[in-house]
Amino acid sequence: MPVSAQTDQIPEQGLFASEGPGGPWWRLNTRQPVSYEVRLHPRLLDPADPTLADAGAAAAQPAGQERRRLLVVESTVYELYGYEISRYFTEQKVDYEVLVIDAHERVKTMDLVMKVVAAMDGFGIVRRAEPVIAFGGGVLTDVAGLASSLYRRSTPHVRVPTTLVGMIDAGIGAKTGVNLGQHKNRLGAYHPAVTTLIDTQFLRTLDERHIANGLAEILKIALIKDAGLMELLESDGARLISERMQAADSLDQGRGAKEVIRRAIQGMLSELQPNLWEHRLTRLVDYGHSFSPAIEMRALPELLHGEAVCVDMAFCTVLARHRGWLTREQQDRIIRLMGELRLPSWHPVCTSALITRALQETTRHRDGRQRLPLPVGIGQACFVDDLSDTELVAALAELRELGHLREDVAL
Amino acid sequence: MPVSAQTDQIPEQGLFASEGPGGPWWRLNTRQPVSYEVRLHPRLLDPADPTLADAGAAAAQPAGQERRRLLVVESTVYELYGYEISRYFTEQKVDYEVLVIDAHERVKTMDLVMKVVAAMDGFGIVRRAEPVIAFGGGVLTDVAGLASSLYRRSTPHVRVPTTLVGMIDAGIGAKTGVNLGQHKNRLGAYHPAVTTLIDTQFLRTLDERHIANGLAEILKIALIKDAGLMELLESDGARLISERMQAADSLDQGRGAKEVIRRAIQGMLSELQPNLWEHRLTRLVDYGHSFSPAIEMRALPELLHGEAVCVDMAFCTVLARHRGWLTREQQDRIIRLMGELRLPSWHPVCTSALITRALQETTRHRDGRQRLPLPVGIGQACFVDDLSDTELVAALAELRELGHLREDVAL
Ligand SMILES: NC(=O)c1ccc[n+]([C@@H]2O[C@H](COP(=O)([O-])OP(=O)(O)OC[C@H]3O[C@@H](n4cnc5c(N)ncnc54)[C@H](O)[C@@H]3O)[C@@H](O)[C@H]2O)c1
Ligand SMILES: NC(=O)c1ccc[n+]([C@@H]2O[C@H](COP(=O)([O-])OP(=O)(O)OC[C@H]3O[C@@H](n4cnc5c(N)ncnc54)[C@H](O)[C@@H]3O)[C@@H](O)[C@H]2O)c1
Repeated sequence: MPVSAQTDQIPEQGLFASEGPGGPWWRLNTRQPVSYEVRLHPRLLDPADPTLADAGAAAAQPAGQERRRLLVVESTVYELYGYEISRYFTEQKVDYEVLVIDAHERVKTMDLVMKVVAAMDGFGIVRRAEPVIAFGGGVLTDVAGLASSLYRRSTPHVRVPTTLVGMIDAGIGAKTGVNLGQHKNRLGAYHPAVTTLIDTQFLRTLDERHIANGLAEILKIALIKDAGLMELLESDGARLISERMQAADSLDQGRGAKEVIRRAIQGMLSELQPNLWEHRLTRLVDYGHSFSPAIEMRALPELLHGEAVCVDMAFCTVLARHRGWLTREQQDRIIRLMGELRLPSWHPVCTSALITRALQETTRHRDGRQRLPLPVGIGQACFVDDLSDTELVAALAELRELGHLREDVAL
Repeated sequence: MPVSAQTDQIPEQGLFASEGPGGPWWRLNTRQPVSYEVRLHPRLLDPADPTLADAGAAAAQPAGQERRRLLVVESTVYELYGYEISRYFTEQKVDYEVLVIDAHERVKTMDLVMKVVAAMDGFGIVRRAEPVIAFGGGVLTDVAGLASSLYRRSTPHVRVPTTLVGMIDAGIGAKTGVNLGQHKNRLGAYHPAVTTLIDTQFLRTLDERHIANGLAEILKIALIKDAGLMELLESDGARLISERMQAADSLDQGRGAKEVIRRAIQGMLSELQPNLWEHRLTRLVDYGHSFSPAIEMRALPELLHGEAVCVDMAFCTVLARHRGWLTREQQDRIIRLMGELRLPSWHPVCTSALITRALQETTRHRDGRQRLPLPVGIGQACFVDDLSDTELVAALAELRELGHLREDVAL
């Protein structure tokens, strides 16, 4: 009897029939090939550059036909870039429609997905030749991605992430999703965009707090697998926030925004590639994501996702030090960097009741084992299954002392 | 630029990074292995037989823990078999909850999926060890399958189809779905059940019209790829309906219900295996499914799915004969068998306007080409892209003469 319809091993392909005790019996083995790309592409909205207008559909485009695109654009992004976006598709002679949606965490529900679906239906999308193009942060791309996944059981989409979180995390994986009641991303699908096109210029209008929020996920990659990225964040992180990742490349000297984003994407994609459907539940990228779902939902709307992740990472840092896997100096270094990146390492909702419940919920989600990634030094991590309530309480007490809501973060 | 995030070729696995004109560039290639089983299993609800209680989770079951299952049961099935189902899970010492839902075509919407999702959430499913078990016809298993697919982006499920359509079609593939407005199955996911367990005894309570409805999909398999199955239907089809597929196996002599179902499943699965995600849009199993979506939705609730499929198959039979691919004798033989199986070969909603629109819609769904399967003799088929309106109108006129709503079908 199989464990699951989706397995981690690649069994022999084919349809196998035999006669069981009860009668005929079949096993069907197959595999779904998935291939997608992520590109940094400056000046994406340059009206002379066809990259975006052709993205995701070039080969499937019926010859000689006009390109048609449905654009799903987050409302703030539309206010800021609507003119440029419209001008781009007009000058590229694309027959387009725009659906502007107000996408934020509290309306990230199936209802919003159904709005996108209705627009796709109204637009009459020809499945494979007319990818939906999603412009926005993680909420928008998660919602538009799920709508694309559901529509005709899979319609291609292209993502243009406009937040830092989108560029290095939400916009480059396979997961889409919406919240269900208090449960973050409880409903969703694995449906990567054919192409994600990243233009860091969108970040010039993002407020500093949301830049910092993205740096939290970048810090995660640094802590679990890239000590060099950690050093870059220490030397340049504060400046990257105030410059909103906009420093000219020539001045950048390989130490700036582009390099930080490149390393973060490289780290993230290399973790995703062998485990895109999360058949393996022990995932390094879950670092910072064990307690944070509960913290984030409880503190809503006060904490941003990356901020909740950062509190979780700080907590796990202390847990790891208590196990002797980090020195006190390393712990201090991590907590200090969080401060420099204007990220919280503590939040008052973190009662031991909440933390204990969060771990139970996460354990359930990870199929009955904790599978908790904990740092081992800087740039490495391991997994534990045996965290005790005593350890949780002790680490929490220490973090409460250490951490505090930083005054320079405008919460 | 790729055609789609899902491709038909298997590219080299891995993450490939390079430097494009605009900056760093990645391509991620991977594949999702999928494996599932379909079994004929008599006396599924025998309290001494653990097959159903263990299905889909045996290996993942945390040792020593009580088995927990959420059962999603269609309301008529619950009325008829609720006692047996409850007794079974009680005697198997499974901690179970039952969600009874009234699942029929007009409520086959995302709202119904959300009801199942809410029950899953309330039950607190541990993702991989506690498959949802769905009992019902195609509507129920499509809805429960989509809910399972969405919940935590993929939760295993087991299907127990209780209609003939479920046993040989809806319950054995990967497709799940719900309607969107007038569009049949416009939203959905590919999410096969880990295991489908087929007990033909459920059919003893199904009315004859729904048996015939399932025979329509079986006739489809016969017409496109199994001439022997066609002969079985001709010799025994009428009897199978009146016996509701219940003849004792010993009397069956390899000509009865079990053999018909076995051949139908074999034919269906062998078409699905190389093309489970429908990357190839030229599909033999689309025979009968080119015009029928529009016919079915227009005639709702008058025509059952298989009946609409049968009208479509009759129409395609005439189209094929006009092209010289079937003789008049073969056409007569097919239309006659439809009558014996109490299936319609005509319906008054089939105006040329509807048929033309149906083909446009289908062509759009098949990415801009008709890809229409048409029979070539009995047991074979080919695809055409060049059907003209003149052909449609001529075939429709002939079918209107030939076909009629049969008095012995209780519409
Ligand atoms: N799918 C995944 O793998 C994945 C990974 C991480 C996070 N997520 C999800 O992503 C969401 C968080 O994403 P987010 O941080 O981008 O939040 P978000 O989508 O809510 O966007 C943050 C804010 O930035 C604004 N904004 C967006 N682009 C802007 C721009 N260029 N200039 C000015 N303002 C702009 C938006 O209006 C919004 O108020 C969460 O829902 C989380 O669950 C998903
Ligand atoms: N997913 C797929 O690949 C696929 C393939 C074919 C059809 N479908 C879908 O399946 C649906 C049609 O399935 P269906 O024909 O099973 O219809 P259905 O699910 O509506 O069931 C038909 C009727 O039979 C009753 N019923 C079910 N089991 C019974 C039993 N054992 N005894 C007495 N009554 C019983 C139900 O109450 C219902 O009224 C359509 O929505 C169609 O889109 C899906």
